Amino acid sequence: MAYICSKYPVCTAFIRKFVIDLLQFCNCMEKLKEAKQDQLNKFEMVKYEMELVQSNSKPIPDKDNADHVVGHSPKFCIEKFQTAMSNYHKLEAKVVQELKDIANKIRIHSITSTQAAKSGHPTSCSSIAEVLSVLFFNTMRYKVSAPRDPSSDRFILSKGHAAPALYAAWAEAGLFPASDLLKLRKIDSDLEGHPTPRLNFIDVATGSLGQGLAIAGGMAFVGKNYDKANYRVYCLVGDGESAEGSIWESIHFASYYKLDNLCVIFDINRLGQSQETALGHDVENYRKRIEAFGMHAIVVDGHDVEELAKAFHIAAETKGKPTAIVAKTLKGKNFPQIENVDNWHGKPLGEHSDKVIQHLKSLIKNQGPLQIHPQKPLKDDVPVVDIKNIKLSSPPSYNLGESVATRVAYGNALVKIAQSNNRVIALDGDMKNSTYSEKLKKFDAARYIECFIAEQSLVGTAIGAACRDRTVPFVSTFATFFTRAYDQIRMGAVSQTNANFVGSHCGVSIGEDGPSQMGLEDIALFRTIPGSTIFYPGDAVATERAIELAAVTKGVTFTRINRNPTPVIYSNDYKFEIGKAIVVKKSDKDKVVLIGAGITLHEAITAAGELQKLGIGARVIDPFTVKPLDSETIIKNINEVGGRAVVVEDHYYEGGLGEAVLSVTALQRNVVVKLIAVSKVPHSGPPAKLMDVYGISAKHIVAAAQEILKY
Amino acid sequence: MAYICSKYPVCTAFIRKFVIDLLQFCNCMEKLKEAKQDQLNKFEMVKYEMELVQSNSKPIPDKDNADHVVGHSPKFCIEKFQTAMSNYHKLEAKVVQELKDIANKIRIHSITSTQAAKSGHPTSCSSIAEVLSVLFFNTMRYKVSAPRDPSSDRFILSKGHAAPALYAAWAEAGLFPASDLLKLRKIDSDLEGHPTPRLNFIDVATGSLGQGLAIAGGMAFVGKNYDKANYRVYCLVGDGESAEGSIWESIHFASYYKLDNLCVIFDINRLGQSQETALGHDVENYRKRIEAFGMHAIVVDGHDVEELAKAFHIAAETKGKPTAIVAKTLKGKNFPQIENVDNWHGKPLGEHSDKVIQHLKSLIKNQGPLQIHPQKPLKDDVPVVDIKNIKLSSPPSYNLGESVATRVAYGNALVKIAQSNNRVIALDGDMKNSTYSEKLKKFDAARYIECFIAEQSLVGTAIGAACRDRTVPFVSTFATFFTRAYDQIRMGAVSQTNANFVGSHCGVSIGEDGPSQMGLEDIALFRTIPGSTIFYPGDAVATERAIELAAVTKGVTFTRINRNPTPVIYSNDYKFEIGKAIVVKKSDKDKVVLIGAGITLHEAITAAGELQKLGIGARVIDPFTVKPLDSETIIKNINEVGGRAVVVEDHYYEGGLGEAVLSVTALQRNVVVKLIAVSKVPHSGPPAKLMDVYGISAKHIVAAAQEILKY
Repeated sequence: MAYICSKYPVCTAFIRKFVIDLLQFCNCMEKLKEAKQDQLNKFEMVKYEMELVQSNSKPIPDKDNADHVVGHSPKFCIEKFQTAMSNYHKLEAKVVQELKDIANKIRIHSITSTQAAKSGHPTSCSSIAEVLSVLFFNTMRYKVSAPRDPSSDRFILSKGHAAPALYAAWAEAGLFPASDLLKLRKIDSDLEGHPTPRLNFIDVATGSLGQGLAIAGGMAFVGKNYDKANYRVYCLVGDGESAEGSIWESIHFASYYKLDNLCVIFDINRLGQSQETALGHDVENYRKRIEAFGMHAIVVDGHDVEELAKAFHIAAETKGKPTAIVAKTLKGKNFPQIENVDNWHGKPLGEHSDKVIQHLKSLIKNQGPLQIHPQKPLKDDVPVVDIKNIKLSSPPSYNLGESVATRVAYGNALVKIAQSNNRVIALDGDMKNSTYSEKLKKFDAARYIECFIAEQSLVGTAIGAACRDRTVPFVSTFATFFTRAYDQIRMGAVSQTNANFVGSHCGVSIGEDGPSQMGLEDIALFRTIPGSTIFYPGDAVATERAIELAAVTKGVTFTRINRNPTPVIYSNDYKFEIGKAIVVKKSDKDKVVLIGAGITLHEAITAAGELQKLGIGARVIDPFTVKPLDSETIIKNINEVGGRAVVVEDHYYEGGLGEAVLSVTALQRNVVVKLIAVSKVPHSGPPAKLMDVYGISAKHIVAAAQEILKY
Repeated sequence: MAYICSKYPVCTAFIRKFVIDLLQFCNCMEKLKEAKQDQLNKFEMVKYEMELVQSNSKPIPDKDNADHVVGHSPKFCIEKFQTAMSNYHKLEAKVVQELKDIANKIRIHSITSTQAAKSGHPTSCSSIAEVLSVLFFNTMRYKVSAPRDPSSDRFILSKGHAAPALYAAWAEAGLFPASDLLKLRKIDSDLEGHPTPRLNFIDVATGSLGQGLAIAGGMAFVGKNYDKANYRVYCLVGDGESAEGSIWESIHFASYYKLDNLCVIFDINRLGQSQETALGHDVENYRKRIEAFGMHAIVVDGHDVEELAKAFHIAAETKGKPTAIVAKTLKGKNFPQIENVDNWHGKPLGEHSDKVIQHLKSLIKNQGPLQIHPQKPLKDDVPVVDIKNIKLSSPPSYNLGESVATRVAYGNALVKIAQSNNRVIALDGDMKNSTYSEKLKKFDAARYIECFIAEQSLVGTAIGAACRDRTVPFVSTFATFFTRAYDQIRMGAVSQTNANFVGSHCGVSIGEDGPSQMGLEDIALFRTIPGSTIFYPGDAVATERAIELAAVTKGVTFTRINRNPTPVIYSNDYKFEIGKAIVVKKSDKDKVVLIGAGITLHEAITAAGELQKLGIGARVIDPFTVKPLDSETIIKNINEVGGRAVVVEDHYYEGGLGEAVLSVTALQRNVVVKLIAVSKVPHSGPPAKLMDVYGISAKHIVAAAQEILKY
């Protein structure tokens, strides 16, 4: 065992660790910063070398020993460092001052706008003022004239409650007059309490915490792998929201996919809403966690514009991994008596505001118009994309009566629409061999994004990938696991996303795996999403058409597919439409309408056959889309049979197809509707048996139809 | 700057880091293990010392420098080590063999039971066989005769799909005959595909991945802080599910609260469902992440029973932080040609099974009855708890007409029921000053658990805390943020949990914060939870009674409370009941029923007044509970007024109060119901203005009532 003299041969993993320690040790010696410039440069070079050692080190299993890690030589690192810094231009003193001034102007706007609104989060704005000023006036390359230009850098404010600061940055950049900021949170202004894409400079809504980074990751993935363009993606995350597991899913995603075009800034201002965060100002702890999750981490004073500018430069130069800037900041920075003080979350400054504004004004050196301006993109290097004209490359080709699981048809459809448009992509959470999204992976591996078992990251990445109409993402997993990302999907609607969701393994009909795997609330979930479209195709043909329609439908779409095979009932040329139900079986003597979808449509068809034998005519309707539901066809047919319907679904009673039908018949006098659905937590068992036990098989439909005839 | 000679004075942080490196270095030298025993002991002592250095080091800010960390002296560590190992008894050779034998028996059971079921996950069982054998036959202290005895150690199988192995361990321990295992996944057996508490040895359902550790954390918190008992909590987590952010929320929670009675085992078997996991067999990477998140980590060969036994001993001796055993394992271990091979997830072995079983049998040395048996708890040291008799310590005391936000009444009620029973606790996600759960913290800080901004951890911890009836948890945050933990709540129902949820800041009436903060789908969410009870109290009096009822109601409860004040309308002695609606206003001449709840109840009352001026009698009903809904009162009153109702709610149309009403009137001929609710993503603005713009204020109710009179 070699000990601690460098003359002795030692394990390379040990050497690597040792230099990291050296870095830690250097970090301890803050006094060095106060020393003269050449010392500082030396210090920074050492620090940067060491960071490079980390960022370029890749675990290389040493024979049987996965713990053994190899790093690069100091010479390699020094060369890397020299290259990286060779194109860094130190900020001129007047630029530094102006960046400081802009930060303080952002602070003033945040105070005045929240004063006018009588609500909002000025102290949360203050901690990020320098980060915004450096990003918007020094680092980012974007077009103020066209905020969603595809070649521009992206910025996501994950801590959406600091919206007033973001609005102020855009106003200072020249997008709109600063006087508009006083309309904050007013009903006639889109400068809402939290950012939404009603504003032309916002890509996605934020405000539910911990979601911005997954979206930024999706954008960065697209920029690196599909657009192959120069734009970079910046995401500002609060320390409070870093407690969300979703943040760590996203860090992992970004490092796994080596998204070096992504830079995340952690605003470590110590204070949450109701108390200090769990880690307070322990930036070293944040650094350790972030590095362990595979990002390059740089700790800076978040109020020092020069440190920030240099850190953003290093981030851009760091290849092979994303960079996190851990910015130590103060909540309410530069607000005398409020800075770093508890109990100031989410409150306008009230009577303190005049004094604080006076103080901030005194810090501003250049009172005239701005001398520095945002930088434009170096070039417009983003390919033109058309996502409007997506079609199945060939029509469905199944045989009537053939048994096909709709999940298999989903895989087929995915490949067909991907053949017609190279911006169709699929994402899955390690379920691709169950959902059949693997068919797209097999067709074109580059257009499949494995998100592993992390549904929040899965959904957020897709929402990011869909931004600025760069891709048409299809997200699949077991239907019930979308409950894991309900908040992300909900926010997706506020973000006006066009992401498409596909849920397999619905209902008790999946069988033996038991209740944890059964989607029994997914329709309810997606029905609550404003503007959503819900497809529940009845067979393989309908599924292919549903996916084709979903690809070009605005807003969130959800397609519910089944695990087990069902017969093909539609001809390959059947024309499906959103909001258009299909009357599958009909006679003039019908006494009752049966409405089923997916697996229960087939049970309803069987039941109608049984009822016929009993002399009871039963009309069968397949809604095709649960939302929008074809109220006209449903009402007309129910009225034609004397106002009686049975709705059957492999879902809980609440919020599903049954209640959707009740919603459209609510204003009909003389209509009675009997719902049959799953009423309690199901058990494991064989699919057919479970459908029987939980009351949704053909025989229960027959009984329900007979019962409703009495009404 | 001191360099690397120990004779020079160096930074203590550097020393600490250095010894950690030494540990890493030692880990590299696996050959040492092959050397003779005294060398091995020496090696392990060094290793253990170093782990202790880590586990006992606490970041101590050194003046202005939070990066500076101080560790303990080697002398301290060696003493600690000696103490820890002084009571460790090396396993006898025959015990080692028997533990190995039990592991292989568990493997055989996993194969035969999944063969009989024709589905299941035998390879996922195989990787954890030794972990289970050591836990159940050497480490854990529990009563086989009383599996949910409160003084017993707890075990949570977070990777629920390995259920057959867990069932086999209990069968081998003697709880039930091994022949029962062949009933796996049958509808007449509770040995379901994934574990549920239908089985008397299961505390919570698992199967939706990444949830077990939060629950284990809740149990450990209760064990350490409320029961103050000796029982330990073990949780087995798969490597696939470690990608879930919820796992990292839970690790953070456990380390923040220093839950040294918790031990989590990570089963690093490399293979997910559809491909290799992101980190594969890189156990060092897992170790780094886990340590960065504050747990003590021990890497072991997960198939070496001696290593496992020692690691569990060290875990039990490690004070001040929870321990994670990072077990490197092979999926399908000991299954020839299947071990560590792709594409074997979730499949019975089929034609391979006979050969594999033969091989496993050949590994078993002791063919006779077991020589070793589970250990009982050292003592029954858990206090007797009664959670049945919870009441408000004093009745509500508000004045009729007084303006009180129901969230304030929630805080009051929480304190009152906490006064009546010391097992009432509250948990919140850094919203306590908005939800008023801080009132309980002020009353008794020990009974408030801050979960920070991590709603999955928040909900999982509460479900864990409620297990074995140890506490009655109330979980509060903004209503809409429960969407973040929908999967946990859904699984909570499968777990038969009695946790109580309270959501504030519902609907557009919260105002300026905008749509990201508005609960508009929370009723839909909680309605889908089987067996749930949903309170939507109309004033402060009703809120206090709702909370009192929730505390003693089985199953998931949800109470929806408002941000803004509303008038008190019920007398302090009003007797509220679950499923019992209140007719708030009534006359014989009524032509229409208005149903509103919470904020819209008050709008409905106002509307009824306006309608009266127009000569239209309107009856007003407050449902009190949305689920169960008082169908009798509602149907009776609607029929009395001629079959007309208007339902108004501050919620989206889908799945809320309106559809709940439609569900109870579905079989009524001659009833028409007009729903009014929020139909799209709302905007920021003043509360009253938003209620107007989104169509749920009194004037819209008046218009709806007038319209429905035409039907």
